[in-house]
Amino acid sequence: MQDIQSYILAVGEQARAASRLIGRADTAAKNRALNAIAASLEADAAALIVENAKDLEAGRAKGLDAAMLDRLAITAKSVKSMADGLREVAALADPVGEITGLAYRPSGIQVGKMRVPLGVIGIIYESRPNVTADAAALCLKSGNACILRGGSESIHSNRAIAAIVRAGLAEAGLPADAVQLIDTTDRAAVGELLRLDKHVDVIVPRGGKGLIERIMAESRIPVIKHLDGICHVYIDDKADHDKAIRIAMNAKTHRYGVCNAMETLLVAEAIAADILPALGGLLREKGVELRGCAKTLALLPEATAATEEDWDTEYLAAILSIRVVAGLDEALEHIHRHSSQHTEAIVTEDYTRARRFLREVDSSSVMVNASTRFADGFEYGLGAEIGISTDKLHARGPVGLEGLTTQKFVVLGDGQIRG
Amino acid sequence: MQDIQSYILAVGEQARAASRLIGRADTAAKNRALNAIAASLEADAAALIVENAKDLEAGRAKGLDAAMLDRLAITAKSVKSMADGLREVAALADPVGEITGLAYRPSGIQVGKMRVPLGVIGIIYESRPNVTADAAALCLKSGNACILRGGSESIHSNRAIAAIVRAGLAEAGLPADAVQLIDTTDRAAVGELLRLDKHVDVIVPRGGKGLIERIMAESRIPVIKHLDGICHVYIDDKADHDKAIRIAMNAKTHRYGVCNAMETLLVAEAIAADILPALGGLLREKGVELRGCAKTLALLPEATAATEEDWDTEYLAAILSIRVVAGLDEALEHIHRHSSQHTEAIVTEDYTRARRFLREVDSSSVMVNASTRFADGFEYGLGAEIGISTDKLHARGPVGLEGLTTQKFVVLGDGQIRG
Repeated sequence: MQDIQSYILAVGEQARAASRLIGRADTAAKNRALNAIAASLEADAAALIVENAKDLEAGRAKGLDAAMLDRLAITAKSVKSMADGLREVAALADPVGEITGLAYRPSGIQVGKMRVPLGVIGIIYESRPNVTADAAALCLKSGNACILRGGSESIHSNRAIAAIVRAGLAEAGLPADAVQLIDTTDRAAVGELLRLDKHVDVIVPRGGKGLIERIMAESRIPVIKHLDGICHVYIDDKADHDKAIRIAMNAKTHRYGVCNAMETLLVAEAIAADILPALGGLLREKGVELRGCAKTLALLPEATAATEEDWDTEYLAAILSIRVVAGLDEALEHIHRHSSQHTEAIVTEDYTRARRFLREVDSSSVMVNASTRFADGFEYGLGAEIGISTDKLHARGPVGLEGLTTQKFVVLGDGQIRG
Repeated sequence: MQDIQSYILAVGEQARAASRLIGRADTAAKNRALNAIAASLEADAAALIVENAKDLEAGRAKGLDAAMLDRLAITAKSVKSMADGLREVAALADPVGEITGLAYRPSGIQVGKMRVPLGVIGIIYESRPNVTADAAALCLKSGNACILRGGSESIHSNRAIAAIVRAGLAEAGLPADAVQLIDTTDRAAVGELLRLDKHVDVIVPRGGKGLIERIMAESRIPVIKHLDGICHVYIDDKADHDKAIRIAMNAKTHRYGVCNAMETLLVAEAIAADILPALGGLLREKGVELRGCAKTLALLPEATAATEEDWDTEYLAAILSIRVVAGLDEALEHIHRHSSQHTEAIVTEDYTRARRFLREVDSSSVMVNASTRFADGFEYGLGAEIGISTDKLHARGPVGLEGLTTQKFVVLGDGQIRG
């Protein structure tokens, strides 16, 4: 235990020292590193796959299910995808050092804000080894050092990827310690990392709800996270029929296991008889289980009765809860009570209702006439995302490079003093 | 104890409910309330002063010292100043609802960010009753509900001011519960408030280091705060002599007890013999005690030897520590080790050194050729400040209306779905 503590402390101190160097590195050096890492990943693909096979073998021996083994697996295709991701991050604009709003004040000083790295980012993730490369790339480009703690089941893969990342940093003249992998599967290491508030500025968890709840309970460091994605689509009685069907189908059935999938559909009573039978038929064709309020059941006899618990459940599955509401006010009230503040959408052609929905729904993404599935860093033009935040402070919604930075005030004077 | 707990919970629930109404209130209504409160404060000045007299009497009986009684006192002049402050906040631009960066994406959706209130702000402060009006005004204008917990020694004054604020809200058709004063002097109320993470989005402490340390240790809610202001001025060997003297004198002697006062002066060795004797004489004339490194003592025999502790001390007094450094690198290293990340300034005419200082110093305000005393919301053009943050997440530096808001993503579509 003492060993783990001093090991994690040393990792933190090295990260803090490296963060000063990476924070002032110029854009060209950071891009050189990213491109070098991409090239090495592709060149060393065969060796990576050999290391990954050790993890897969151990995983099979431990009885991991097919979905977990699938997430764990590295293939020629996934290596290519990691390398492409690194090159895309290299192509993104460097946010660090940008000065905005520099304006003269009556005193004669100029005041503006400079975008700067947060410092040291701790990434705690589960089985997907590609996170090792993806997260390191975003931290590197945004001028942050990072400490990576992957799942124990992917330790061989993570070690191999981290070694390539560190070699690429060194090749570009940057400190290898800007990316450190916690090289132990001891679970106590996570607890120690979460107490390292002196050396780690923010924690980004990537994984299931259990992992995130543990981190929230233990961390002394701010956490960028979302816990649930209980996303709502409200079909207003002034909705365009085709848009409503299209958006609801996409939001529910495009992918089931994702945080921006619709989990609850709200339908205005005046349009419910027009929408629900048609939509219900299409959803059933896709094999979606329907759970509804009493008014829904009257229109969709094949649905089962929703319980109170359904309105607070993120299914992450082919299940949809449906509620018929009187109109916008009742929809807003339902969302206020049950939303996880991730993403909500209204379908309407009514200008004033659209404007009210945008203003009054307190979620990280609020949409009019678009599928909730668009709540994504790439779709929003952030380039890539390290995660999605449903918290209000700092980053909210998909978190890209900018969310890994902060702003400090800069003041330029010519000898001014305060009178 | 159970009573305090349910009382604070009820306050939190009322604040959350009120925050939804104040969050969507239009600018005109919020300004009407602010102006009504200002008018009532002036109209009721005599009654306020009577209530304040009860606090002063109790304070004298408790043996509060002259400085504390001075902070506690409400006078005709301080009422005018509170009212003027409210009218200034009314005149500030409303940050809520502003949409920025709304741009089309290849998918056809438009994505932008809307500025929205944080929700519920808890303000915990000590003896100055004017905070009751000032903080309420900033929260109100930024569309937030607030819960105010003032010092027990100013309870009568705070009650009287809060009643006027709540009447002004009601007069403008806004919920009185958008501003609630915790109406008990029981210290357990603070602990309960700090655990109310479901209903309070951020805590802003206003007070001494002891208060802030207690809040940091206990709070389950994010805190916007600064603990220390150990501000540095570095006089480079390429500094203009007059600017260096002027800035150092202003940064140290303009006011002693403020967080943006200089506490440590760093002087490049090549210019030390030119600067220090002249500056030392001026500082002595003002009665400033000087504590220096060995090289400083050689130039300023009247200074005493600084200990290691001096470099980490916020004097908030007429004391200055002085260190002669080899040059910019050593200055940056000293600042990295000893700064509280509040405000640092360089005095130099050298372009490249100025640029390095701005980029490499990791503080909430970084200045070139200007006095650290400018680190202030009003001087920066924020209008007013609720506090200064030396943290990196969310707000950094002086926190004005914008720091009491966050941004959510808004997406406008025409039926787009994700492919």
